[in-house]
Amino acid sequence: MERPRCDVVVVGGGVIGLASAWRAAREGLAVVLVDPEPGRGASWAAAGMLAPVTEVHYGEEALLALNLASARSWPGFAAEVEEESGLPVSYRRTGTLLVAADEGDRAWAAELHRFQAGLGLEVEWLTGREARALEPALAPGVRAGLWAPGDHQVHNRELVGALLAAGRAREVVHLPLRVSSVETSGGAVSGVGLGDGTTIDCGAVVLAAGCRSGELAGVPAGVLPPVRPVKGQILRLRGPADRPLLSRTVRGVVQGQSVYLVPRADGSLVIGATVEEAGFDLTVTAGAVYGLLRDAQRVVPGVSELVLEESLAGLRPGSPDNGPLVGPSGLPGLVLATGHYRNGILLTPLTAEAVAATLAGREVPGELAGFGPDRFPVLAC
Amino acid sequence: MERPRCDVVVVGGGVIGLASAWRAAREGLAVVLVDPEPGRGASWAAAGMLAPVTEVHYGEEALLALNLASARSWPGFAAEVEEESGLPVSYRRTGTLLVAADEGDRAWAAELHRFQAGLGLEVEWLTGREARALEPALAPGVRAGLWAPGDHQVHNRELVGALLAAGRAREVVHLPLRVSSVETSGGAVSGVGLGDGTTIDCGAVVLAAGCRSGELAGVPAGVLPPVRPVKGQILRLRGPADRPLLSRTVRGVVQGQSVYLVPRADGSLVIGATVEEAGFDLTVTAGAVYGLLRDAQRVVPGVSELVLEESLAGLRPGSPDNGPLVGPSGLPGLVLATGHYRNGILLTPLTAEAVAATLAGREVPGELAGFGPDRFPVLAC
Repeated sequence: MERPRCDVVVVGGGVIGLASAWRAAREGLAVVLVDPEPGRGASWAAAGMLAPVTEVHYGEEALLALNLASARSWPGFAAEVEEESGLPVSYRRTGTLLVAADEGDRAWAAELHRFQAGLGLEVEWLTGREARALEPALAPGVRAGLWAPGDHQVHNRELVGALLAAGRAREVVHLPLRVSSVETSGGAVSGVGLGDGTTIDCGAVVLAAGCRSGELAGVPAGVLPPVRPVKGQILRLRGPADRPLLSRTVRGVVQGQSVYLVPRADGSLVIGATVEEAGFDLTVTAGAVYGLLRDAQRVVPGVSELVLEESLAGLRPGSPDNGPLVGPSGLPGLVLATGHYRNGILLTPLTAEAVAATLAGREVPGELAGFGPDRFPVLAC
Repeated sequence: MERPRCDVVVVGGGVIGLASAWRAAREGLAVVLVDPEPGRGASWAAAGMLAPVTEVHYGEEALLALNLASARSWPGFAAEVEEESGLPVSYRRTGTLLVAADEGDRAWAAELHRFQAGLGLEVEWLTGREARALEPALAPGVRAGLWAPGDHQVHNRELVGALLAAGRAREVVHLPLRVSSVETSGGAVSGVGLGDGTTIDCGAVVLAAGCRSGELAGVPAGVLPPVRPVKGQILRLRGPADRPLLSRTVRGVVQGQSVYLVPRADGSLVIGATVEEAGFDLTVTAGAVYGLLRDAQRVVPGVSELVLEESLAGLRPGSPDNGPLVGPSGLPGLVLATGHYRNGILLTPLTAEAVAATLAGREVPGELAGFGPDRFPVLAC
């Protein structure tokens, strides 16, 4: 019997894998995407913030440039996904307001503002009163705010559904299985082995398995990406859709801890997130739920009245320098698209474009040039 | 066609209705119990504390005597339920430790101790150090404790399952419907109308519908019990079964607020409960979850490490004096068994005995004599 064959197998159906498969199919390639539960990992537990300015970190200026470039590509990307899928992704241009809970947080925010201004980012300093004028639900004690009018959001769960549909419209085949191994022939990718014992022949494999991308059999150790799970716990609450508590994303800094509150158009509110190195652990802990509610209520007291509908944990794919690993790898035919850490949703458009370009034999976009999979030294085992 | 007929219809399948139906069937009566979801209301959201001593309230001495009498009947009742059902109810004689979080709470506990001692209750004053010797997971800051060795617990969800099975073993028929009305003939109960439009003829109806007992069509307004929903929110957490955080029920008093932590043999821990007058609202709010976790962690810090598995709300059937309404009503053939407020699980044995006695034409047990349905003045509408 002839073995099934396609051009590209995408390993992993988070937003990175889904978007990469869709973009590859638009290049005319025959694509199979393999994931037992597409979109139900970190993509599902995300909040959908597209916030390079308020999330800028010291020492990550190269990543900032990449994030800004991907943020600029979001309006066009969202429009294309919606058009090809016929489904909404709720890309909302509502900006992000960072607020400081106490005097120490105010000092931290002022330092961040100097850093942002030095980078030429569009961000405005607000007094507590000015911040409350923008968002009346803010606590009276809020000391100051940073208004980033260009830090937007997308509904990450809608995005999953729309990317699945957009892929199907381009004849991407979704297999609800695990990829158990990559097969090689003459030193290059020749296929994959699946969890049900079958195989698929292919000329290329896109490894987009998030925090599990570092453990695929058949890939040489030096080629496997150095990713690790970074657990994040989030809450999803619900208030009245006709009287939303917030009209834009609020990021609170509370005694040095960060908490975000992302309002959806339907009245729900996503609150996140913890950052924990706890291995492949997806449990929701009492301490995390408590800490998120404490800090969220500190900056937006009305949160206490909302209905707590869901508590969930996800595993971000962390990398050594917090930047993604995107592009061709040391194994011919294996393309990496992983390690996006906290920026997976934000970096989906540029990553998918880079994967499609690599598969089509073109160069990756310049913004991703510094984020090739070969930038980390191989550790001897 | 002949209408279906039985001796007794029990309206409501919480622990009160289930136990009453079982006991009535043991009297030789043909019993039908009607509830769309037996055991899934307040009985499911309960913690199973059998704690008349630590829960004694000022001004409720008559209720205390009733609670103590029912607590004494629990060992025999649990053994009978387990024998007739073949299922465990995990009646655990582990006692209850009340602990005071700060100096104000210590003063409150000392006052409670004087009140308890004056009532001749078995309760011992402990220093913080002595309390921690009993339960090493208690916070270092715990100021004092009250040790009530006779306040035990039962697994309320196991109890629901065992009572269902015990009833079936006595040929109680469980109908997964609603009772829509009580039918009368010659001024006495003659049957019930069901939600599917059918009817059952019967000589007696037991109204055990918890907080919804006050709204049954066909019952004269002056006979309907004055019960109201009192919302309680609880959490169910899980820790390692081989290293339980607590070995007995801990009731914390934290800045005047009460929180209880009830450990199960399987490593789970029930934390409760809020007390809210919010109508027929079963939502879980962020503020309630936050408050329960805050107070629980204050007395047992290790709670933060546990997995939060479930957040749930239940509606206790509140009565004007916090005591139950049990026995014959002003409508011949209608027996009430409702209004148990926070003592439903505790009062199940005595209530079921009283219902069975009433149905069999005997007097209710003496301890319940003061809790007849006729003790409240009828309000003119």
